[in-house]
Amino acid sequence: MTRLTQADCAALDQSDALREFRSEFIVSPEGVYLDGNSLGLLTHAARDRVRTLVEQEWATDAVQGWHKRDWVNLPERLGARLARLVGAHADEVTVADSTSVNLFKLAVACCRANASGKRRKIVTELGNFPTDLYILQGLTELLGSNLELCAVPREQVLNTIDGDTALVVLTHVHYKSADMFDMPAVTRLAHEHGALILWDLCHSVGALPVDLGGAGADVAVGCGYKYLNGGPGAPAFLYVKRELQQRLQPSITGWMGHANPFEFGDDYRPAADIRRHRSGTPGILGLAALDGSLSVFDRVDMQAVRHKSVRLTELFIELVEQECAGHGLSLVTPRDAAQRGSHVSFQHDNGYEIMRALIARNVVGDFRAPDVVRFGLTPLYTRHVDVWNAVAALREVLETGAWQQADYRIRLAVT
Amino acid sequence: MTRLTQADCAALDQSDALREFRSEFIVSPEGVYLDGNSLGLLTHAARDRVRTLVEQEWATDAVQGWHKRDWVNLPERLGARLARLVGAHADEVTVADSTSVNLFKLAVACCRANASGKRRKIVTELGNFPTDLYILQGLTELLGSNLELCAVPREQVLNTIDGDTALVVLTHVHYKSADMFDMPAVTRLAHEHGALILWDLCHSVGALPVDLGGAGADVAVGCGYKYLNGGPGAPAFLYVKRELQQRLQPSITGWMGHANPFEFGDDYRPAADIRRHRSGTPGILGLAALDGSLSVFDRVDMQAVRHKSVRLTELFIELVEQECAGHGLSLVTPRDAAQRGSHVSFQHDNGYEIMRALIARNVVGDFRAPDVVRFGLTPLYTRHVDVWNAVAALREVLETGAWQQADYRIRLAVT
Repeated sequence: MTRLTQADCAALDQSDALREFRSEFIVSPEGVYLDGNSLGLLTHAARDRVRTLVEQEWATDAVQGWHKRDWVNLPERLGARLARLVGAHADEVTVADSTSVNLFKLAVACCRANASGKRRKIVTELGNFPTDLYILQGLTELLGSNLELCAVPREQVLNTIDGDTALVVLTHVHYKSADMFDMPAVTRLAHEHGALILWDLCHSVGALPVDLGGAGADVAVGCGYKYLNGGPGAPAFLYVKRELQQRLQPSITGWMGHANPFEFGDDYRPAADIRRHRSGTPGILGLAALDGSLSVFDRVDMQAVRHKSVRLTELFIELVEQECAGHGLSLVTPRDAAQRGSHVSFQHDNGYEIMRALIARNVVGDFRAPDVVRFGLTPLYTRHVDVWNAVAALREVLETGAWQQADYRIRLAVT
Repeated sequence: MTRLTQADCAALDQSDALREFRSEFIVSPEGVYLDGNSLGLLTHAARDRVRTLVEQEWATDAVQGWHKRDWVNLPERLGARLARLVGAHADEVTVADSTSVNLFKLAVACCRANASGKRRKIVTELGNFPTDLYILQGLTELLGSNLELCAVPREQVLNTIDGDTALVVLTHVHYKSADMFDMPAVTRLAHEHGALILWDLCHSVGALPVDLGGAGADVAVGCGYKYLNGGPGAPAFLYVKRELQQRLQPSITGWMGHANPFEFGDDYRPAADIRRHRSGTPGILGLAALDGSLSVFDRVDMQAVRHKSVRLTELFIELVEQECAGHGLSLVTPRDAAQRGSHVSFQHDNGYEIMRALIARNVVGDFRAPDVVRFGLTPLYTRHVDVWNAVAALREVLETGAWQQADYRIRLAVT
């Protein structure tokens, strides 16, 4: 095998079908940002949309903005655009709250709809993103002794799904390893046993084509601030398939989920559609940033994103193995692209210090306890030459032992 | 009694101790905005803070902003500043989610802590703001048959609180009538019966001094987008008194409420303090706007706000009675200032059309179904002469019958 060079990477950038999109983002001219799966970069469109929202709409229209500017329907308008990215119908998605709150709402709703008699298991993966585990632990306690949470190692998940399973909750692409579940196959398995399935799309949406409809998935949640570039703590989204929309009752019955909130009546009556899973007044500033960033995605072919993502992750693995061999890094991420999301992770006993040393060199990836360094490859703004430069910095840090001198204690990022 | 004139109002503005604050806001030079209790106006400070957050912090620091800019603690930093406005200790308040979600979280927590045996009633007011009623209806169903929701007419609320009551949920200032509960007395009554009490401060905070600590209140929630001017759908806040912080378990156990979220462990362990009631990743854009608007409140004497609020509401009532008598308006708001918040409402069979006609004249108040017109008086930017001008427009609309010609169907505002 011939050694890859920086020139090879530059040549790949020349033929990159997505290269025009990089100029949509505000990218630092120095360094390499490989943490778009924790917080996506700012787009010019999001910056402009927030400015307009605050400085023209709020400033000029004040309360009348709710109708004049249709803020009141912004969650569903964004949901309809997001739907294309996850293979859903426009009326199956809305934007609301945080991923954690949406996960709570839909998991509770699924348990109420599908748990009874012996069917009382919730199956999930040990080592799943913590909020998924924590939310399920909390709701099992909240809803009482009829439910049992079965959090099992990844390799046992499929065997644990059985006729006693009410709900399966899985993250499509693992936040640490980038391991990807076969969504159609696992969904089919859950359905064969009469279970409902909730997919967490935090590390999938915007990074690869998702086809909830094709898989027959029941419900899903996902994050606005990673690959969707909606800004720090951006509002999250939720999906409920049409066939379930009447059956699933809302869990947090706030006024914005009412069939007619402006009737101001004393009795709750859920909206007939996806809106029933709204709770409080939608946060319009966060929605505005996401509105802007989605206007970039509106023009993106997700197959092209996947194609480049696979190429970038392959390149990253290949270069690390070429440049950094013998320094104790072990690949955590699957080698088979079909089983991999859009980030690459390595285990190293000194992962924490290594990542801090990289960040001091303007190569920003992420550390995930206890010992994983993680690099997110975001096809809309990561270049092949960025991969080269990041790996060159990693090599320098490892070869010189620079990471040993660093003294970094403060944890740096939020997933 | 001598008739009040526009000149009298202008003179009151001259001696207004808070008049310098109006220049902190972006106020339309035309018309009168009397809907700050639905959506507060934009401050220069909020505009600037959002610009800095997006265009400097997110743009430059990206994911590192969580620690470099301390976004991760922004909810508690804002909570500590809000604490002064509600008579709480700095560590008793945090900013999170929406009012509806916070109400759900704290009401569920109180029921779990205090309901058992015969003690299973939740007492609230019929005609309370809908989300309060809806959330309580939903959680009573969710938590099972042990709980009973007693929503009774306002005049029966106090008599309904008894030894079987687990929780009392009341809105301090009524969203429609501006009727104000005696917080210390009602809190005392609830405690005498062994009940916990949750106060909804949506129409109080920022409009009048609230003293949760002095009243011994247990828990509270409130809104960021009304008198606090945090922007459309701004994040809400929640309060838990120190003595209860260990006893109340979190209801939506997301990762940001974990004792150490960045340890990424499999098992949920709630934070020891107010942070346990966080759920997902905080929405930093919304928090930034609130950060800006609170920087104005940091310099405000809430006693001066109350003094001016009382004067403005008195003036509004007096002028409507002087200028608009005989046109079918009946005062809904208490005449006694001690029992009144900072808005004034009138019943009129054609309230909806009247409000639409006023808005067409750039006098923006609000309509609340079925027949109430509501005018919010916000001491930081409402002038006495604004009250004069608003009442003059109301008089014109009533005398000419202009409202009869208007054809307005679309509901206009969100409370």
